[in-house]
Amino acid sequence: MSRFLSLEAQRLAPYTPGEQPRDQQYIKLNTNESPFPPSPKVLDALSRAEAEKLCLYSDPACGALNAAIAGRYGLSEENVISGNGSDEILAFAFRAFCGEGRGAAFADITYGFYEAQAALFGLEARRVPLREDFSLNVEDYLDFPGTVVLANPNAPTGMTVPTAAIRRLLERDPGRVVIVDEAYVDFGGESCVPLVREYGNLLVTQTMSKSRSLAGGRIGFALGAPELIEDLNRVKYSFNPYNVNRLSLLAGAAAMEDEDYFRTCCRAVRDNRAWTAAELEARGFAVLPSSANFLFAKSDRLPGGELYRSLKERGILVRWFDKDRIRDFVRITIGSREQMEALMEQIDRLSAGT
Amino acid sequence: MSRFLSLEAQRLAPYTPGEQPRDQQYIKLNTNESPFPPSPKVLDALSRAEAEKLCLYSDPACGALNAAIAGRYGLSEENVISGNGSDEILAFAFRAFCGEGRGAAFADITYGFYEAQAALFGLEARRVPLREDFSLNVEDYLDFPGTVVLANPNAPTGMTVPTAAIRRLLERDPGRVVIVDEAYVDFGGESCVPLVREYGNLLVTQTMSKSRSLAGGRIGFALGAPELIEDLNRVKYSFNPYNVNRLSLLAGAAAMEDEDYFRTCCRAVRDNRAWTAAELEARGFAVLPSSANFLFAKSDRLPGGELYRSLKERGILVRWFDKDRIRDFVRITIGSREQMEALMEQIDRLSAGT
Repeated sequence: MSRFLSLEAQRLAPYTPGEQPRDQQYIKLNTNESPFPPSPKVLDALSRAEAEKLCLYSDPACGALNAAIAGRYGLSEENVISGNGSDEILAFAFRAFCGEGRGAAFADITYGFYEAQAALFGLEARRVPLREDFSLNVEDYLDFPGTVVLANPNAPTGMTVPTAAIRRLLERDPGRVVIVDEAYVDFGGESCVPLVREYGNLLVTQTMSKSRSLAGGRIGFALGAPELIEDLNRVKYSFNPYNVNRLSLLAGAAAMEDEDYFRTCCRAVRDNRAWTAAELEARGFAVLPSSANFLFAKSDRLPGGELYRSLKERGILVRWFDKDRIRDFVRITIGSREQMEALMEQIDRLSAGT
Repeated sequence: MSRFLSLEAQRLAPYTPGEQPRDQQYIKLNTNESPFPPSPKVLDALSRAEAEKLCLYSDPACGALNAAIAGRYGLSEENVISGNGSDEILAFAFRAFCGEGRGAAFADITYGFYEAQAALFGLEARRVPLREDFSLNVEDYLDFPGTVVLANPNAPTGMTVPTAAIRRLLERDPGRVVIVDEAYVDFGGESCVPLVREYGNLLVTQTMSKSRSLAGGRIGFALGAPELIEDLNRVKYSFNPYNVNRLSLLAGAAAMEDEDYFRTCCRAVRDNRAWTAAELEARGFAVLPSSANFLFAKSDRLPGGELYRSLKERGILVRWFDKDRIRDFVRITIGSREQMEALMEQIDRLSAGT
């Protein structure tokens, strides 16, 4: 920290991303990436001819990408904003819809980034405890006067909130924005996108990092009423007008248009998830019911931190959060079948002490 | 605007980027892009094999890119932070070094984005008038108690501030950060990068959008003392840890390593600038002395707005700012020789009324 750091920046709560080791070849099951490469259509879109055009700015309006997204979800371009990952979109939303006297509420166990972004804008953050079983009780949010942020499915649990509950929240106070972060929805959750036309106070965020195999392309988007999108653009044009680079605009549009590949990848992840959950349970793990591309699981023998470290020594990275309530768990990304089999083999060896 | 927009967001002053028309083929001399494609080494770096890895997150630390930048400037990795364009880096700097009671000062005629970003964080902004001839008087900033932001060369004038003046500013108050935005420095300005090791309160920002032909890749960076860089990372990890995508990391590193290509492109721009300035002056234009890849010029016949519109009708885009003091000018990006010749032809036709 320098002596110049502003008081506001001293109050920040920076997020710690999962390890991205550069030194060794790990089986990476720690940051919820897809085990599959992007669609061949994405690879074709990223041609040398397009790379030659990198001397020109990207379209600040992200027109072609937004059109592809809108088309996929039966919405219009005015319902869409794209960003440099959904993290950026979430930051825009915190700035647009929260401020002094209008804070944000989110679960005590959820995506750690909400906390960081609330601090970025000096917002009052209410952390609402999940139930003992990690399910979310929508009653807890009904009378909160600020913006409500729900990850659905939630991270790192993988558990979902029923659409009916979200409807209640939206209807209880139409003067309040509800942000539903659907980063993991394509792996089995029920999406709120069909509600976008119905509720002017609903903002749904999604990402291409998981189900579209584009984590390294940094492409996220939000869907909402045109007025909400306009507000987000107001923030974007105050922060970084050309926020999505040319190649990511192309990659995102191509990924959005390859529905077959998308479905095939999501199905494979769901199948591997079911297999992995059964295998873990057979080995005495408690596994939360997941609709995401990861499992949150607790060994009946090893504490989370120890399991994490032992697996890392054996070349497998999973994510462990050294945090109250979830210290016993590890979060395991669903990779390819081969990767999950390698995980089981190492867990068996660990148990056998070999 | 929705009814949910926070008071803070209502106070924003969004930036209007230059036109990026999608409908027609223009000669684009309006957003200071390079007329040259990126280095062939950049094109080689963006291989299909790398695109296949887009399913994996980018390195949040931007290690390889920062190393390439540090190597080029004789600094170490701790002196560097990379961002999604230098706009993002500037936003991080405003958050890190400004706050309540510590505002920002910048020229009345300068890059419009400082204004937008100061508003984003609710900062007090002092706009310091340039002299009548658009030169910057460093005396005006000596006793300003907050952060000073100077574009050097300045935009849209192209004019420079001597390094000696910046030294005075740095030394006058070591308790204050001076940000020198060197987006255009490679076209003939004197860089402050050699001062980075000398002054703990200097932050230099640069971009690959202009001299490295990568506007569409969105790659900017800042150089400064390790403590300043640490502060900027604190903001970055509160906003968007994976802020630079995989392909831009590769493109940026490759561009930074192709010194020959870089020099060739910069020399061509300087030559075309000299040619264009002379041609404009021969046609009665007043042209400010530019060290950037654009000229700020005023016709002795046509007001800026009319010139801008007439050229646009003739297929040439230049930038016009409908703003006090500079309404008579247009900003003309230096393109290829052919583009500049086409510009002169249209100016001649305009004068001839044909």
